[in-house]
Amino acid sequence: MKTIPSNRSKRGVEELEVVAGNGLLDRRAFLRGAAAMAAAMTGYTLVEPAAAAPFANDPWSLVPGTTSGATEQRSRFEEKVVRTLTNPKGEPRTQHARTPHHLLNGTITPNSLHFTIVHAGTPDIDPDKHRLVIHGLVKRPLVFTLDALARYPMVSRVTFVECGGNSAPLFSKEPIQAGVQALHGLVSCAEWTGVRLSTLLEETGIDPKAKWLIAEGADAPAVSRSVPMAKAMDDAMIALYQNGERLMPGNGYPMRLLLPGWEGNMNVKWLRRIKLVEAPAMSYYEARTYAPILPNGKAYQFFFLQEVKSFITHPSPGLMLKGPGFYEISGVAYSANGRIAKVLVSADGGQSWAQAALQEPVLSKAFTRFRIAWNWHGGPAILQSRAWDEAGNVQPTRAQIVAQRGEAKAVLPVTAFPSQHYNGITSWAIDGKGEVKHVYA
Amino acid sequence: MKTIPSNRSKRGVEELEVVAGNGLLDRRAFLRGAAAMAAAMTGYTLVEPAAAAPFANDPWSLVPGTTSGATEQRSRFEEKVVRTLTNPKGEPRTQHARTPHHLLNGTITPNSLHFTIVHAGTPDIDPDKHRLVIHGLVKRPLVFTLDALARYPMVSRVTFVECGGNSAPLFSKEPIQAGVQALHGLVSCAEWTGVRLSTLLEETGIDPKAKWLIAEGADAPAVSRSVPMAKAMDDAMIALYQNGERLMPGNGYPMRLLLPGWEGNMNVKWLRRIKLVEAPAMSYYEARTYAPILPNGKAYQFFFLQEVKSFITHPSPGLMLKGPGFYEISGVAYSANGRIAKVLVSADGGQSWAQAALQEPVLSKAFTRFRIAWNWHGGPAILQSRAWDEAGNVQPTRAQIVAQRGEAKAVLPVTAFPSQHYNGITSWAIDGKGEVKHVYA
Repeated sequence: MKTIPSNRSKRGVEELEVVAGNGLLDRRAFLRGAAAMAAAMTGYTLVEPAAAAPFANDPWSLVPGTTSGATEQRSRFEEKVVRTLTNPKGEPRTQHARTPHHLLNGTITPNSLHFTIVHAGTPDIDPDKHRLVIHGLVKRPLVFTLDALARYPMVSRVTFVECGGNSAPLFSKEPIQAGVQALHGLVSCAEWTGVRLSTLLEETGIDPKAKWLIAEGADAPAVSRSVPMAKAMDDAMIALYQNGERLMPGNGYPMRLLLPGWEGNMNVKWLRRIKLVEAPAMSYYEARTYAPILPNGKAYQFFFLQEVKSFITHPSPGLMLKGPGFYEISGVAYSANGRIAKVLVSADGGQSWAQAALQEPVLSKAFTRFRIAWNWHGGPAILQSRAWDEAGNVQPTRAQIVAQRGEAKAVLPVTAFPSQHYNGITSWAIDGKGEVKHVYA
Repeated sequence: MKTIPSNRSKRGVEELEVVAGNGLLDRRAFLRGAAAMAAAMTGYTLVEPAAAAPFANDPWSLVPGTTSGATEQRSRFEEKVVRTLTNPKGEPRTQHARTPHHLLNGTITPNSLHFTIVHAGTPDIDPDKHRLVIHGLVKRPLVFTLDALARYPMVSRVTFVECGGNSAPLFSKEPIQAGVQALHGLVSCAEWTGVRLSTLLEETGIDPKAKWLIAEGADAPAVSRSVPMAKAMDDAMIALYQNGERLMPGNGYPMRLLLPGWEGNMNVKWLRRIKLVEAPAMSYYEARTYAPILPNGKAYQFFFLQEVKSFITHPSPGLMLKGPGFYEISGVAYSANGRIAKVLVSADGGQSWAQAALQEPVLSKAFTRFRIAWNWHGGPAILQSRAWDEAGNVQPTRAQIVAQRGEAKAVLPVTAFPSQHYNGITSWAIDGKGEVKHVYA
């Protein structure tokens, strides 16, 4: 067997329009389909099966395989595909588990790899004994069992959930040497199914004095957050299913509040009580963690939206480029303000930009996978992505958001940043060897 | 604490248009949202938290919870949510593992519960050593490693995969007493990501004489199927990811052929070779299993499409109704011929029909969840669903498809039916106690 350059290398990139610096190729080539893309595979070696070797049976083809189980388990060769844990021994403090975006593709995060943050471990809830109480400024307080909820009309929607602290390491004065999992692993996307909160509030009736609700979880610290009634009556859901099956324990089994596009911590897990009230509770997380002090001295509080954002997952640190030639650059974009309208990608640190293809269907408040063809010449490059949403919002540069929210004075641990809701641009630098590093550019 | 009838029971269904016999309610009520639906909760008891009991802490709220793991594992209370296995000891014959649709909701099947059929167990493939060879009537044969495939442009799509033998028990002369998992558990739906086959065929080049390809797996029987080139160049994919992560072993890890909407067996798993040829191979599965003899004596062969179909998952056998009042009827619909256009539901065995709401987004060749509000009066009912696709095809009645394809002479084991591709209507009878049974109606 011998290695050969691509059949198409002589035609190569000249058939495709180079639309931005450092080898970015026309996104329409991607949309047009195969012919044009294959033409871009310059310098890309493939293997010709001249010898008989590839037609020999591999050892696993010569023996019976393993027996199907009641639940399918992933391959032993995928054991490296795991969440990273900040507190693997479960010491009495918060535990973060981050999604390995660089090892995933598509838009759905599998349930086993959805990020979780728990503040005193995950409660082991018996669903038959769990109750949801809706009380306070209602016409009649009610208690709902899971059996009762199962009879109500349900809705499904694909939506991301993102921790307000996701990407906070980018407030650091110097770029932290970490990959997409450490920097952006506190966001995931799933199909959630459950009962609209508005459906249940119609059952209880609403006292017109109610302007907020306080949602409270059944975990040991009884995490509680205040939610404006407008969101409750809009698209809030009592989520019961995650990607088809019951919620994972770390995601709130047997039920959580889902507030599409809003700060993860407000999507209260293990939801047990909703109290309608006139004013917010000023609970721990809203009064402390999610009230960072801005450069102007004011607290940045009650800011709920996870605004328009994107980051590149492929390539990213840890995924080494193996020689010049064609690569696909891809990543995810999302916004609390609706659908992603466009994503631009730069391969030269923002000097020039090209429009990426958006994978259909582009759904509101959900991950949108973007992809663009790239011909890497083998030299240094800085990859960036920048997203726009249908409401006209644009993802800020890092300089813009740091100016507004403040920069950490020192390099801090990943969990100790003074600000929240970083949605600025991420930059990956590629050196001549194909190694990818986090930089500011 | 006392139980009370719904607040809305006096207004009740008279506020909602009853659009078909036996209590089916206007689907627009569902689309309008909560207010109208809540009004339908007649006879439906909820619990008022008059006593302090619901505000007591449950035991799991009083202790620290469990530690987050590198992969999230489902609750111990969900251990009953499993695939049913035809060959749990892995004897040397085919193993089926069926999806528990009655315990799921939404449209995505989680990877652990996606159906699988394996003919000699699941091979334990080392992805670094696995190769995909494309040869035969090509301009140059090529070998692709996983690393090579990772550089090509990828696409994602949500699509169902269905075994040609799914639902075959409905060819039985008498209705087999089984639920939706046993009858329809050989279909699932996931987001698949990979490289278009057409992209790779542009790399190899295609000899114009090629009219078919033979796809071959790396399992011990080397399952192989013939696929027309037109499908290969349309939407065929070399799938590498399933709901974001690498394929599950039983679904073809590290790669499978994905032919959206086509008979599951053709979506060759553990794909190792694609040979372009002039004529089909007449391989085992296409010459025997998927060539049933029709009543007219001819073989029903090379029929690839999984045609328009639907079935109700909630309620279904095993899910007992607990007293009269409001329920949501929901299920899944799908078609190899594109998007689902509409689903009608009957509660009186097909005497009258009402249009169900379709959960957005309605995607081509994917599960579409349909839902309709139902006020069960507590008497006998027969639930049916019937789907139409955008190409104008309508799901046949059982009588229609049995007349065309033949009926089994006896009640056979679930795996031994003489015909394939059953896409007729399924009927669930509900008795006065709320028990659900499979019937022909």
